[in-house]
Amino acid sequence: MTLAVRYTAARTLDTAPALSAPPGPGEVELAPAYVGICGTDLHIFHGDMDARVDTPAVLGHEMSGRVVSVGPGVEGWAPGDAVTVMPLRWDDTCPACQAGHQHVCQNLDFIGIDSPGAMQQRWTVPATTLIRLPEALALDRAALVEPTAVAVHDVGRAGVKEGERVVVVGGGPVGILIALVARAAGADVRIAELSAHRRALAEESGLTAWDPAVDDVPELVREWTGDAGADVAFEVSGAAAGVGTAVEVLGVRGRLCLVAIHPRPREINLHRFFWRELTLVGARLYDRSDFEKAVALVADGTVPADRLISKVVPLTEAPAAFEALEAGGDVMKILVDCTDESDDAQGAAV
Amino acid sequence: MTLAVRYTAARTLDTAPALSAPPGPGEVELAPAYVGICGTDLHIFHGDMDARVDTPAVLGHEMSGRVVSVGPGVEGWAPGDAVTVMPLRWDDTCPACQAGHQHVCQNLDFIGIDSPGAMQQRWTVPATTLIRLPEALALDRAALVEPTAVAVHDVGRAGVKEGERVVVVGGGPVGILIALVARAAGADVRIAELSAHRRALAEESGLTAWDPAVDDVPELVREWTGDAGADVAFEVSGAAAGVGTAVEVLGVRGRLCLVAIHPRPREINLHRFFWRELTLVGARLYDRSDFEKAVALVADGTVPADRLISKVVPLTEAPAAFEALEAGGDVMKILVDCTDESDDAQGAAV
Ligand SMILES: NC(=O)c1ccc[n+]([C@@H]2O[C@H](COP(=O)([O-])OP(=O)(O)OC[C@H]3O[C@@H](n4cnc5c(N)ncnc54)[C@H](O)[C@@H]3O)[C@@H](O)[C@H]2O)c1
Ligand SMILES: NC(=O)c1ccc[n+]([C@@H]2O[C@H](COP(=O)([O-])OP(=O)(O)OC[C@H]3O[C@@H](n4cnc5c(N)ncnc54)[C@H](O)[C@@H]3O)[C@@H](O)[C@H]2O)c1
Ligand SMILES: [Zn+2]
Ligand SMILES: [Zn+2]
Repeated sequence: MTLAVRYTAARTLDTAPALSAPPGPGEVELAPAYVGICGTDLHIFHGDMDARVDTPAVLGHEMSGRVVSVGPGVEGWAPGDAVTVMPLRWDDTCPACQAGHQHVCQNLDFIGIDSPGAMQQRWTVPATTLIRLPEALALDRAALVEPTAVAVHDVGRAGVKEGERVVVVGGGPVGILIALVARAAGADVRIAELSAHRRALAEESGLTAWDPAVDDVPELVREWTGDAGADVAFEVSGAAAGVGTAVEVLGVRGRLCLVAIHPRPREINLHRFFWRELTLVGARLYDRSDFEKAVALVADGTVPADRLISKVVPLTEAPAAFEALEAGGDVMKILVDCTDESDDAQGAAV
Repeated sequence: MTLAVRYTAARTLDTAPALSAPPGPGEVELAPAYVGICGTDLHIFHGDMDARVDTPAVLGHEMSGRVVSVGPGVEGWAPGDAVTVMPLRWDDTCPACQAGHQHVCQNLDFIGIDSPGAMQQRWTVPATTLIRLPEALALDRAALVEPTAVAVHDVGRAGVKEGERVVVVGGGPVGILIALVARAAGADVRIAELSAHRRALAEESGLTAWDPAVDDVPELVREWTGDAGADVAFEVSGAAAGVGTAVEVLGVRGRLCLVAIHPRPREINLHRFFWRELTLVGARLYDRSDFEKAVALVADGTVPADRLISKVVPLTEAPAAFEALEAGGDVMKILVDCTDESDDAQGAAV
């Protein structure tokens, strides 16, 4: 019997048998191996997204795993293939799709929110969502490909160029990945992050991290840049204060890439946008090329996945892991281990 | 004796002899002909900019006129030449200048705010600020070149392309000029403007104008664009409600060009920036190429200057014109006529 982690009501998760369906035409059945818990999963857990989520809901969209079986008409995939999933299904007909922006389709199905996710031992998805993983890449590390694809997309949206000075506001999992990807693009990067644990992780990765509760971040940026201000800021904190910092550190023609989700409107210093001719760029999700770059960055160690994975918990302990994450503490990324020792599909990994 | 309009204290203007200085090296002495009154001049008049302005201050930066005399080392200019002025002096050394963005120099001297302006019968400026006017262009119309250069810059910052759908929020002098320049670039344009008089002026110019107090502008945009939303919005109202409208009308990857000055922070729906991957672009002033395009657009009638000039008042009545503008009413652009019948420099115009 295969298991699933299910959200049933606010602050309530259980584990129950996975409703495994054989793959239909164009579909593939996967055995998820590792699934990351992300901020959006926590939002769902809080009950903040009940209007969007059908309960019981299987969460999870940051995954790695192997193909178990392929449905009719699927070519190029075979049982045992190591994969991750780009969890998007678009309609190809709305104005956004027609304009070539399928990843922000006006009727997007985000798999893991709008339809069942990866936190289960069998998962059936369209073959078009699969991204191949190199055999040499350990599956636990590969669970970081999805958030790395977010970071790749964001660095692309901001147009970060070699030699530019970049401030990342918020050094959670997404923020630190953005910092690493921006550095790999040749940028000089600073992080502003409240948590000492997360600042330490950033420093261990060779990044400089400031504490906005103590340091005068805009003043540090002025010193660092010879009064020019930063070229790019990423707002990845989700906090009102983080938005203020990101606007304040930018120099003339600076670009602010907005990654975090701000459920409420925020006060913005528009005068500064006018005065310095700043740009604000919203960034959401990713496309296939972002995913492919992300695979390469995780595989080649640009993303120090081992350092960012704080803990791996078995599927049956996922509910407790959500409670722990909720409580905060010294943690970066937690993975749920969905592998089943008795599983042939996982056996194929050996 | 030549006269100047001077701001002496909040809500107080007088006329006094112009402090005419013979042109120094690299300078040119002008006889201003027509000078437009702009929103910034009104802000100064209100006393809102006393921290920035040295009193008594000669206002005015939207001008046309003729060269009276040239200082040592000035080449290419002769008495009688018809000119307008790009009223910017930069330091060429700050980080913005070093990066090639002189028009937003971190130590910019905006002539007419930070140093004496054009509302006088003699005005000495650096020869580098001069822009040549075609002899065939009437000098009253030419006073619209400066605000048209603002519009050219803004349409460029927004990257308006042929066939795009554009919403201009705020149909004052700057907004209507943006609408006209965007239409000339091949865009399909709608204006949202509260004043019936200004909507009527827009309609007379062949533009469609909506009344945001009555019309549901976002809904009209959805109908107009087949649910796609607009490609570009310009916020030119300066009002909090205008910002909301500009954000709401945009489709996926839409660009909001921020032109208006918002002295206070504004609440912005950042979730929509994330969700639709919107871009906000601040736009300030112009550069020489914007001015040169503006001269062409005013000269060829793309900008229907006669329709936009509501009234021309003699210099001695400028104080009363400020009071009238302050009171609002059915008005678009008011020009101050600085010509002096007895003036040889103006005689050269005949
Ligand atoms: N754009 C997208 O497609 C996309 C994808 C994934 C996540 N997100 C969003 O990105 C944001 C970050 O995700 P995450 O998983 O890293 O979240 P997280 O909550 O783990 O990280 C946010 C970090 O910001 C720090 N912080 C809070 N206030 C701060 C301040 N004023 N200054 C500096 N740091 C501050 C916190 O200490 C925390 O470490 C979330 O809002 C998430 O919803 C967006
Ligand atoms: N970016 C620049 O370099 C630059 C240059 C010149 C002017 N400006 C700024 O541009 C703005 C416009 O200048 P202007 O001279 O046309 O000013 P204006 O005040 O004459 O015009 C603003 C117009 O917006 C309208 N309006 C107000 N609230 C509205 C709403 N909610 N919806 C729709 N319309 C609304 C008003 O009726 C008015 O006609 C000002 O803020 C000015 O300071 C900026
Ligand atoms: Zn679509
Ligand atoms: Zn400068």
